[in-house]
Amino acid sequence: MQGQQQQAYDRGTTIFSPDGRLYQVEYAREAVKRGSASIGVRTPDGVVLLADKQSHSPLLEPSSVEKLHKADDHVGMASAGHVADARQLIDFARRQAQVNRLRFGEVMGVETLTKTVTDFIQRYTQVGGARPFGVALVVGGIENGEPRLFETDPSGTPYEWEALAIGESRDDIQDYFEEHYEPDLSLDDGIELALRALASVSDDGLTTAGLDLATIAVDTEQYYQYSPDELDDVLAEHGLLAADDE
Amino acid sequence: MQGQQQQAYDRGTTIFSPDGRLYQVEYAREAVKRGSASIGVRTPDGVVLLADKQSHSPLLEPSSVEKLHKADDHVGMASAGHVADARQLIDFARRQAQVNRLRFGEVMGVETLTKTVTDFIQRYTQVGGARPFGVALVVGGIENGEPRLFETDPSGTPYEWEALAIGESRDDIQDYFEEHYEPDLSLDDGIELALRALASVSDDGLTTAGLDLATIAVDTEQYYQYSPDELDDVLAEHGLLAADDE
Amino acid sequence: MQGQQQQAYDRGTTIFSPDGRLYQVEYAREAVKRGSASIGVRTPDGVVLLADKQSHSPLLEPSSVEKLHKADDHVGMASAGHVADARQLIDFARRQAQVNRLRFGEVMGVETLTKTVTDFIQRYTQVGGARPFGVALVVGGIENGEPRLFETDPSGTPYEWEALAIGESRDDIQDYFEEHYEPDLSLDDGIELALRALASVSDDGLTTAGLDLATIAVDTEQYYQYSPDELDDVLAEHGLLAADDE
Amino acid sequence: MQGQQQQAYDRGTTIFSPDGRLYQVEYAREAVKRGSASIGVRTPDGVVLLADKQSHSPLLEPSSVEKLHKADDHVGMASAGHVADARQLIDFARRQAQVNRLRFGEVMGVETLTKTVTDFIQRYTQVGGARPFGVALVVGGIENGEPRLFETDPSGTPYEWEALAIGESRDDIQDYFEEHYEPDLSLDDGIELALRALASVSDDGLTTAGLDLATIAVDTEQYYQYSPDELDDVLAEHGLLAADDE
Amino acid sequence: MQGQQQQAYDRGTTIFSPDGRLYQVEYAREAVKRGSASIGVRTPDGVVLLADKQSHSPLLEPSSVEKLHKADDHVGMASAGHVADARQLIDFARRQAQVNRLRFGEVMGVETLTKTVTDFIQRYTQVGGARPFGVALVVGGIENGEPRLFETDPSGTPYEWEALAIGESRDDIQDYFEEHYEPDLSLDDGIELALRALASVSDDGLTTAGLDLATIAVDTEQYYQYSPDELDDVLAEHGLLAADDE
Amino acid sequence: MQGQQQQAYDRGTTIFSPDGRLYQVEYAREAVKRGSASIGVRTPDGVVLLADKQSHSPLLEPSSVEKLHKADDHVGMASAGHVADARQLIDFARRQAQVNRLRFGEVMGVETLTKTVTDFIQRYTQVGGARPFGVALVVGGIENGEPRLFETDPSGTPYEWEALAIGESRDDIQDYFEEHYEPDLSLDDGIELALRALASVSDDGLTTAGLDLATIAVDTEQYYQYSPDELDDVLAEHGLLAADDE
Amino acid sequence: MQGQQQQAYDRGTTIFSPDGRLYQVEYAREAVKRGSASIGVRTPDGVVLLADKQSHSPLLEPSSVEKLHKADDHVGMASAGHVADARQLIDFARRQAQVNRLRFGEVMGVETLTKTVTDFIQRYTQVGGARPFGVALVVGGIENGEPRLFETDPSGTPYEWEALAIGESRDDIQDYFEEHYEPDLSLDDGIELALRALASVSDDGLTTAGLDLATIAVDTEQYYQYSPDELDDVLAEHGLLAADDE
Repeated sequence: MQGQQQQAYDRGTTIFSPDGRLYQVEYAREAVKRGSASIGVRTPDGVVLLADKQSHSPLLEPSSVEKLHKADDHVGMASAGHVADARQLIDFARRQAQVNRLRFGEVMGVETLTKTVTDFIQRYTQVGGARPFGVALVVGGIENGEPRLFETDPSGTPYEWEALAIGESRDDIQDYFEEHYEPDLSLDDGIELALRALASVSDDGLTTAGLDLATIAVDTEQYYQYSPDELDDVLAEHGLLAADDE
Repeated sequence: MQGQQQQAYDRGTTIFSPDGRLYQVEYAREAVKRGSASIGVRTPDGVVLLADKQSHSPLLEPSSVEKLHKADDHVGMASAGHVADARQLIDFARRQAQVNRLRFGEVMGVETLTKTVTDFIQRYTQVGGARPFGVALVVGGIENGEPRLFETDPSGTPYEWEALAIGESRDDIQDYFEEHYEPDLSLDDGIELALRALASVSDDGLTTAGLDLATIAVDTEQYYQYSPDELDDVLAEHGLLAADDE
Repeated sequence: MQGQQQQAYDRGTTIFSPDGRLYQVEYAREAVKRGSASIGVRTPDGVVLLADKQSHSPLLEPSSVEKLHKADDHVGMASAGHVADARQLIDFARRQAQVNRLRFGEVMGVETLTKTVTDFIQRYTQVGGARPFGVALVVGGIENGEPRLFETDPSGTPYEWEALAIGESRDDIQDYFEEHYEPDLSLDDGIELALRALASVSDDGLTTAGLDLATIAVDTEQYYQYSPDELDDVLAEHGLLAADDE
Repeated sequence: MQGQQQQAYDRGTTIFSPDGRLYQVEYAREAVKRGSASIGVRTPDGVVLLADKQSHSPLLEPSSVEKLHKADDHVGMASAGHVADARQLIDFARRQAQVNRLRFGEVMGVETLTKTVTDFIQRYTQVGGARPFGVALVVGGIENGEPRLFETDPSGTPYEWEALAIGESRDDIQDYFEEHYEPDLSLDDGIELALRALASVSDDGLTTAGLDLATIAVDTEQYYQYSPDELDDVLAEHGLLAADDE
Repeated sequence: MQGQQQQAYDRGTTIFSPDGRLYQVEYAREAVKRGSASIGVRTPDGVVLLADKQSHSPLLEPSSVEKLHKADDHVGMASAGHVADARQLIDFARRQAQVNRLRFGEVMGVETLTKTVTDFIQRYTQVGGARPFGVALVVGGIENGEPRLFETDPSGTPYEWEALAIGESRDDIQDYFEEHYEPDLSLDDGIELALRALASVSDDGLTTAGLDLATIAVDTEQYYQYSPDELDDVLAEHGLLAADDE
Repeated sequence: MQGQQQQAYDRGTTIFSPDGRLYQVEYAREAVKRGSASIGVRTPDGVVLLADKQSHSPLLEPSSVEKLHKADDHVGMASAGHVADARQLIDFARRQAQVNRLRFGEVMGVETLTKTVTDFIQRYTQVGGARPFGVALVVGGIENGEPRLFETDPSGTPYEWEALAIGESRDDIQDYFEEHYEPDLSLDDGIELALRALASVSDDGLTTAGLDLATIAVDTEQYYQYSPDELDDVLAEHGLLAADDE
Repeated sequence: MQGQQQQAYDRGTTIFSPDGRLYQVEYAREAVKRGSASIGVRTPDGVVLLADKQSHSPLLEPSSVEKLHKADDHVGMASAGHVADARQLIDFARRQAQVNRLRFGEVMGVETLTKTVTDFIQRYTQVGGARPFGVALVVGGIENGEPRLFETDPSGTPYEWEALAIGESRDDIQDYFEEHYEPDLSLDDGIELALRALASVSDDGLTTAGLDLATIAVDTEQYYQYSPDELDDVLAEHGLLAADDE
């Protein structure tokens, strides 16, 4: 189905195409692909979240390009796509996590939190008067001592992964993971894998200012975001610093 | 009615075509056909639910492809079509079942629960401002000691079956059932029948990771989902393991 | 008025055509004609309701093809058209009947109940944001010791009949009734007339699985639905069993 | 203004045409003309209401073709056009009359009741989201000992008449009245005038089953609907019975 | 701006044309011109209201053609355009006047009452979901011992006049007034002026049945509507009776 | 951007054109230009408000052409454009000023009042379901002993001026001001400047009936509207009376 | 994507284009570019806000061209684009800051305040019934003793900058900053940089009346707006006064 015919069914979320597709959701996926990549890697020791923050101005504060968020003490989220849309989902997740603590006196599981978010996303694909969310999320955290790694997409479907990428070059990074991922990586190995996967699709190498890195380790169950200096060290250690960033 | 003429009547749920059809509901049925199959088989000893989980990535956690759900202790549901839509219906069913327990102190019958869901679905086919649900469900459970097996479709019509398939290859699997189904199967026979029916339409054979299997037995009245190991054993027992999965 | 011109006025319930017609209501009537027939016959001893349940699969439970419903102890309803729409009307009728019992301590008359349903239907033909109901009902019951037989159509108009059919082949069955109906039939004669009328339009004869039969007799004032065995006997008694059903 | 140009302004109630017309209201008047006629005649002794109930099936209960309604003890209403729409207006009028009795302890005047109905109708010609009512009413009753006879039309304008017809053949019947109406008729003369006026446009003569007749006499101030037998007598008395009805 | 171009901006009240016009309001003014004329004349002794009631049937009660209304003891209103729309405005005015009496214990001034009505009209020219009122009003009354005469139009603009006409032939009657109006007329002279102005545009002369006449005199501050007999005398006195009405 | 292309973006307030313009707001500005001019002049001693009231009928009460309004004791407003729209804004301003007095026990500043009005106007340029206000206002008053003069336009932007005109011939009058305005005018000089500016664009000279004049002086802080006699004197004093008005 | 094809997806905020873009948000960015520039510069000693106020009339009060606003004691905001839209956002920010003080007894951080505003903006890009805000903001303030400088754009994305420009000539000014900005500027140097950057894109030089300048210094944590005289001194000091302004 193409051109004129496709256009007949792609103007709203309240309409299926004759072959059962939801074009507005598919277009929202295109919005995700336009965003720079975010990556998640699960290891037995914890989860790694890595975000590519392409900035085109040296005067822009790198830290203000929001792609990595702490959703709760034990959960982090990395986005690809519309930043402003991502903020809505992160805020929603934070409120849900907060309410859960208050109401039940315990933290919300990573899977439950992810599905609360995807259910929220789904409503924007079925009910009229709004567009779908133009963003995908990598959700990582520790649940009952186990590392968990999820993806949310604009259709509101949750998936659990060992390693995944969303946004630009997703397919290439995913191919890299399928070739190099091992289930028994150490957390540091996981960090290296995430960085090398991203480096494999970056023409100019990686830079400290262009990345955000966080881990949620099994032993601490705490979201930990790397400082620029720490990130610098990690990049240098693996020989991944771009020439002009050294 | 075709092309231009059909397009005049297929953009919303609040409009009949001149020949009395609801195109948006028919398109939602196409969305169901695009989803991988789910199967239900009823035997005197209980109900079998089997879901085909086609995954195209080895890094995706098979368990996160949600097609089989426990709706209540004694009721399971398997979906085909939009996963995010299915979650809405399952959540709705669970809340209804929960409310019933609280309000009346007893479990909700399988038929009543199914029809509560189909009535909910129907509203999305008559009132504007939203699209129909792009998902069908196989609902299986025990009611008053009797195994029951239902189908819900995007129009909101409930059907009761001895054996059924929804989603991709529905017609072929249904044909297989019409040829091989016997009303006096044991529960194990029912499992085998479900697996063989699915295998009959799978070019590459069945794999543990690509399936979800559950039963609700008459004697326990409990939804029981097979672990990967148990599923492995069942597939091996019947010689149904795909060559490269063994 | 045809083609292009008709299309200018047939997309909603809130618009008349230049010649004063409501096309969406007329299209909903087409939806009724697409459904298998339901029949009602009034005799001095009670009312007969008969529904044709065309099933195309031997694995489908015939009882789950819902065309005949008990609306209250003394009232039954048979539908033709969209099954899911019919359920909405039946549920509405049941709630109204229940409320009437609670509020006034007495059962609702058949005529009042019918008109409560048709008034509900009418709103869907005048107010926007939804489509008309794509279903017609035969309503039969006993009121003050008198058998009553009504029809509701998608416009929300109530009619009272001595004998009527809705759905597929309505005109042919109606012709049959005009030729053979007698006002002083016994209830059994009424059953036979209903069956013969339906048989007159069935190429393959009648089958137990393909029918639902109910009566509301004047002496009991109770809705009574025939079991498959009882229906079998009735069909056999009148030599109406299809060859391959015997 | 015609064709394409007219179509630009005839799709809703919230829009005037460039020459200041409301096409949807005019189309609703066409819906009235499509309905069989209803007639009212005012005499010093009371008001006569007569409705033509064209039925095309001998199995249809003539009494269920609802064209004549008692709105209150002292007020009757006869409709032409959409029966289901008429029911909405009659119900509205009955509730208003009832509320008036409860709130003020006295009956509602015929003129006030009529205008309450026309004001209700008007809203459906100005506010969007619904279509106008496709029905006209003849309203007859006694107010302060005086016979009153009103008309409501789809625009919501009230008119008072000495004698009027609505629906099919309105113009011909109205011409008949202009020629034959006398202000000092007895109530019986009024009945005869109404019947002869209707007979003048009926090719096949009048039949008991095809008519409803009611009077509201000044001395009783009660709505009185003729039984089929009484109507038979009246028709016979005036030699107006159709040949095949005798 | 014409034809196609005009049509682009004339379908709703929520849209300006490129040259800043509101076409729907202009079309509503056309609806006013389609109505028979109403007239107001202000004299030092009081206000005269005169309405032309063109009736095309001798069986229609002239009094039921509602063009002249008492809005409060001291205020009258005459309309031109949609009668049903006028009723809405009159009812609104009456309720406002009533509320004012109850809340403040005094009557509402003619100017305040008029502007309350025009503000109500204005909302229908700016907010969507409804059409403008297709009616204009002549509002006459006594305020603080002074005669006041206002006009409301479909845009919701209030104007005060010495003498004015609305509806059919407005321009011709207005020309007549500009030539013949004197500010120091007696109330009777005012009546004669109003009648002669209307007669000047009536081909067939004036008739009692075709007119409504009312005055609100400064000394009584009471709305007074002439009976047919009184009107007859007035017409005869001035030799204005149509030949066939004498 | 012109013709077809412009039309694609000019039908509502909820849409930007590709070059970032809001056409409906620009069209509302055209509505302002269609209205006769209003003028404001600020002098150290107070503010002058002058309105041109073009009337085309000698029978119309000049005082009823509402262009000059007292919004509060110390604030006046003169409008150009849709009179009925202006009334809405004036009423809104009056209510706000009243509420401020009641709630805080002090008068509302001219700037605050103006901005409360422009914020109200802005909502009609961003949210759907209504059109922008087709009117501009000159707002003059005394705040903390200082004369203030503001403009509101259909976009909801507030501006403060030394001297300004809105409506017809705005640009010509503004040019006149730029040439002749002096910041140290006496209030009488300000009046003369305003009159001469208006006269400079009036072909037929000024007339008492065609003008409204008001001042808010610093020493009184009271809105003062000139009577026709006083205005007559002012016009005569400056030799500005139109020949045929003397 | 261009012309016809682009037009298919650019009429509302509730729709993605096939390549995942939100055209209405992009058009709102065009509205920002149509507005005169606003500038922010961050230095270790505080934040500089500078606004270009192009006025085309000498009679317009420069102070009334609102581009620079105090949002809270320690936060200022400068806008580019629709002034009336900016006022909505400023008002929203002020209310939020006020509520925060009342509820938590402390001032709101600059980052939190900015993100509260961007979240508010985002809703207007996803939910229908309104257009996006056609304005961008530069937000500057002191938070925990640190100078912070943010940007909000019509998509609702927050960015933090060392130096930035919004509105007309943004790219040129930004280029100027990239060449001349130093992170260790004194506050006075920051002012000079801002002025020189703006001067670099002004053909006619800078004028006191055409600028607004404010600082929020680290030591005072107070928003301070320069008076015309002070601004005059600053411009003169740096030799930046336009020839005809001296």
